[in-house]
Amino acid sequence: MQVSARNALKGTVKNVVVGSVNTEVTIEVAPGVEVTAIITKSSAENLKLAEGKEVYAVIKSSDVIIAVD
Amino acid sequence: MQVSARNALKGTVKNVVVGSVNTEVTIEVAPGVEVTAIITKSSAENLKLAEGKEVYAVIKSSDVIIAVD
Amino acid sequence: MQVSARNALKGTVKNVVVGSVNTEVTIEVAPGVEVTAIITKSSAENLKLAEGKEVYAVIKSSDVIIAVD
Amino acid sequence: MQVSARNALKGTVKNVVVGSVNTEVTIEVAPGVEVTAIITKSSAENLKLAEGKEVYAVIKSSDVIIAVD
Amino acid sequence: MQVSARNALKGTVKNVVVGSVNTEVTIEVAPGVEVTAIITKSSAENLKLAEGKEVYAVIKSSDVIIAVD
Amino acid sequence: MQVSARNALKGTVKNVVVGSVNTEVTIEVAPGVEVTAIITKSSAENLKLAEGKEVYAVIKSSDVIIAVD
Repeated sequence: MQVSARNALKGTVKNVVVGSVNTEVTIEVAPGVEVTAIITKSSAENLKLAEGKEVYAVIKSSDVIIAVD
Repeated sequence: MQVSARNALKGTVKNVVVGSVNTEVTIEVAPGVEVTAIITKSSAENLKLAEGKEVYAVIKSSDVIIAVD
Repeated sequence: MQVSARNALKGTVKNVVVGSVNTEVTIEVAPGVEVTAIITKSSAENLKLAEGKEVYAVIKSSDVIIAVD
Repeated sequence: MQVSARNALKGTVKNVVVGSVNTEVTIEVAPGVEVTAIITKSSAENLKLAEGKEVYAVIKSSDVIIAVD
Repeated sequence: MQVSARNALKGTVKNVVVGSVNTEVTIEVAPGVEVTAIITKSSAENLKLAEGKEVYAVIKSSDVIIAVD
Repeated sequence: MQVSARNALKGTVKNVVVGSVNTEVTIEVAPGVEVTAIITKSSAENLKLAEGKEVYAVIKSSDVIIAVD
């Protein structure tokens, strides 16, 4: 499967925090560079997300904000 | 300034493509790891974005989709 | 590939309108039910989107607003 | 009321799961075609969402990702 | 029509900039407080948006980022 | 820090509701005009959000939907 989202960063799941409806997943996409995702609890279960699993962090380019110091 | 968005990836602007309303900006956040952003043309001008500039790619964790092979 | 987005509606591309940076794609997900997507022009080209192609409209559940009359 | 969001899919609420801050709502927009929304608990209460209620799933076209096999 | 989006700020259109696919609309929601929206060109036409028109800026609470100095 | 998001509305925190993963924050951006944000619980803690604190509600222009009566 290929997606139109311009950003599909390959990484490894570092941490999973389960809530009542949502789950927070932290993904290391490069040494020391982490991306955190909030997804539904049922999606996290369907994808069998757990520490160490290889995943992609998919982000639409229109969802990225640029900040400068 | 600090933001609530969980993801603020530090990087360097690699490429800027200007459209009529929007501008596409590619940011290298780690060697070989790039994030593309679509922002308004006027924002790109206000931030004086150009190749080589140091920026942050700010992404809300609720905007990240996780994909697995 | 499997995605955490809860919504992956299977459909057929009905129409593609190309802009300078973005492209608008209309997908029929059921008879008479259409979903319109704005994606980057380069993504549309990479995916070789054209009328009649079978695709999925992927939508994060946190991006859906509910309206009632 | 009319909205700028290109997608306003008419449907029927199939399921409502209540969390501490958010609520997950599943809407059938065509036979066998469902859209899931995560909205705030208070919004779900204000709209009196319950199984069988007729609603619209409103989605901005910039929030739709296209995937192809 | 009522929407699940928590934020529906009443305002007046101040400015409309038309692009090839998208249109940028600036709305004054309080004296000196403006909100800018990027919507599709066809949506702007359907809603007959023009300077002085009364509109609502509808924003999902999950799309708001909080920043502090 | 400057951000590409076109909307950075200055305001005061009016209310904070803490959930298991997310926190709901209400910000008054003008007398009688409020914006509600859902952010992660840990972000709310990092930013030390509490009633009366001065903050900015940052919103990408592509996340704003326009509605008309």
